[in-house]
Amino acid sequence: MAPDRTRPPLLLVTSLEPADEAAWREALSRAMPDETLASPDHPDAARGAEIAIVANPPPGALARLPALRWIHSLWAGVDRLLLDATLPQVPVLRLVDPALAGAMAEAVAAAVLHLHRDFPRYADQQRRHVWIQHEARPAQGRTVTLLGLGEMGRASAAVLRTLGFPVQGWSRSGAASPGVAVASGPDGLARALERTDILVNLLPLTDETRGILGHDIFARLPRGAGLVNFGRGAHVVEDDLIVALNSGHLGHAILDVFATEPLPPGHRLWDHPGITILPHVAAPTSRASASAIVATAIRSFRETGTVPVGVDRARGY
Amino acid sequence: MAPDRTRPPLLLVTSLEPADEAAWREALSRAMPDETLASPDHPDAARGAEIAIVANPPPGALARLPALRWIHSLWAGVDRLLLDATLPQVPVLRLVDPALAGAMAEAVAAAVLHLHRDFPRYADQQRRHVWIQHEARPAQGRTVTLLGLGEMGRASAAVLRTLGFPVQGWSRSGAASPGVAVASGPDGLARALERTDILVNLLPLTDETRGILGHDIFARLPRGAGLVNFGRGAHVVEDDLIVALNSGHLGHAILDVFATEPLPPGHRLWDHPGITILPHVAAPTSRASASAIVATAIRSFRETGTVPVGVDRARGY
Ligand SMILES: NC(=O)c1ccc[n+]([C@@H]2O[C@H](COP(=O)([O-])OP(=O)(O)OC[C@H]3O[C@@H](n4cnc5c(N)ncnc54)[C@H](OP(=O)(O)O)[C@@H]3O)[C@@H](O)[C@H]2O)c1
Ligand SMILES: NC(=O)c1ccc[n+]([C@@H]2O[C@H](COP(=O)([O-])OP(=O)(O)OC[C@H]3O[C@@H](n4cnc5c(N)ncnc54)[C@H](OP(=O)(O)O)[C@@H]3O)[C@@H](O)[C@H]2O)c1
Repeated sequence: MAPDRTRPPLLLVTSLEPADEAAWREALSRAMPDETLASPDHPDAARGAEIAIVANPPPGALARLPALRWIHSLWAGVDRLLLDATLPQVPVLRLVDPALAGAMAEAVAAAVLHLHRDFPRYADQQRRHVWIQHEARPAQGRTVTLLGLGEMGRASAAVLRTLGFPVQGWSRSGAASPGVAVASGPDGLARALERTDILVNLLPLTDETRGILGHDIFARLPRGAGLVNFGRGAHVVEDDLIVALNSGHLGHAILDVFATEPLPPGHRLWDHPGITILPHVAAPTSRASASAIVATAIRSFRETGTVPVGVDRARGY
Repeated sequence: MAPDRTRPPLLLVTSLEPADEAAWREALSRAMPDETLASPDHPDAARGAEIAIVANPPPGALARLPALRWIHSLWAGVDRLLLDATLPQVPVLRLVDPALAGAMAEAVAAAVLHLHRDFPRYADQQRRHVWIQHEARPAQGRTVTLLGLGEMGRASAAVLRTLGFPVQGWSRSGAASPGVAVASGPDGLARALERTDILVNLLPLTDETRGILGHDIFARLPRGAGLVNFGRGAHVVEDDLIVALNSGHLGHAILDVFATEPLPPGHRLWDHPGITILPHVAAPTSRASASAIVATAIRSFRETGTVPVGVDRARGY
């Protein structure tokens, strides 16, 4: 199929490395052979485009697009995008991809089993040539609490349940979720934390959740609890985390996201023995699968003319 | 219930540390309050006992028990027991405990996800303060092959399937197993290995399987494959393993069992960067659960007088 030249082009707006942007352009073109993808540098395209597909767009880059009706992000988290005060007041869609939620659930299983099975402790013993067997608890006796029960949280809960872990969850609405003891509000959170062996953060980054992984939450956890942060780096109060790990109150932390990414080579987190560092690989976006999802939304808009519903910008996710 | 003194006592024969033996004695007594547990040092007990419960019995310790009719091991693997040439020709039962198989399946999931999610590589990067994201394959594209499809192998296959991994299995009989592509014989093994990304050993140690994890098997695996040994240390030809890791032909190995345990502090395996060492913790026997299983077998013998069927001593498992 050849692109339909009578339609205004789609804008692709990113600050990615050129090779990375080119790979996205190719995947999107393959998913939408009848659409034209243009850069916002092209004045005609900027004037006519109704839809922008974005991945870390440079701040301000979406401000002067007179025909823009909606925006589709290629990422699941739109925290960075919404921080841009010049972002036009049009619906912003985030990526909702079951493949992404499946990858996240797998990452959560890997991280939880890593802590549950004492891998960090045995790695430390290996370095010291020490053979000590630590008492093993069955999964049934290890409660995992998920902060955030959205696409990522619900998929993760399902996998943790099949592995036998009791699962608690915390969300804004407190909406029921199969097999999960759901809490909401500060009191619900406090009670859930007291029964938590491993805490997994899957919240979006918003004004309400920034810095949530700090002293107050850590203090509520039983001594020796594990922490997994697969949300955003800015959820963590780094000083509080280090204090909690150094005192032994937190047993170990697995971090995949950081306030600054890539984590700078001189950063103190790299060498902390209580921290496992992953380079933001918990749930990598698949270009093919994301492009197919974006294509479906755009096809529906072309057919119906209805602008899709975006994230709640006041709420921040 | 008080012990029934008209019955001959049960013998408990071990070479465990005194505290460990005492804990077993307590768990067994709790599971069988109407039985008496005696030591083989007691001449009356040694003369009258029909049943011995054993955990690493000292070689020769079972040789002169005139009334002995059968033996129950507290371990799942009876390789060490069967090596004792003085072992009387009575049925030997091994521990078949669903809780043990469940623990093993969980350990296999933890180890396979550890390799699948590149944890060893990211740990190495963390040591060097390096942030590189490696391409992630979905579980559906990573084939796990289980050597041995017994109690442990079948439970492990089921958990790996729920995580989305294609699973192959290799056994003597080649008997069908749900969701598993089963092979048998040397040719079946060779073909299965060529399609294997992660190889997991769950074979019993017998004359046929000793040294099976050596050059021939490694050479058949695709370059970069991972290895998990949760069977026995003597399954591995250590020199071949180190050659395969050093050449990069094997990507990483997770070892839980060793020819000598505890692994001596000066052993070369401790410091190999391609090896993760666990101190025989994949599937620890639960005293309570094992004692209940032994109690059931003994109760049935007391009621029916029928000596239970043991392992196939010619086959070795
Ligand atoms: N590390 C990675 O590779 C990676 C990959 C993808 C995504 N992520 C992160 O994961 C986050 C979650 O993704 P998702 O798709 O699951 O998001 P989502 O579907 O929007 O779900 C968000 C969840 O958080 C809850 N929540 C939001 N604000 C809250 C608050 N103030 N108090 C309590 N609960 C609150 C929501 O509650 P309600 O259910 O009541 O709305 C919902 O359950 C993303 O925003 C991103 O930061 C990381
Ligand atoms: N690391 C730990 O913590 C731990 C804990 C428990 C057990 N283990 C180890 O796990 C082993 C397996 O336990 P299990 O309960 O699963 O044993 P099992 O039920 O006896 O199963 C053994 C499996 O191996 C297969 N097999 C035996 N010899 C073979 C040969 N020569 N060629 C091909 N296949 C062969 C058998 O084939 P068939 O099905 O045809 O008989 C069967 O599928 C134990 O012996 C022990 O060494 C380790």
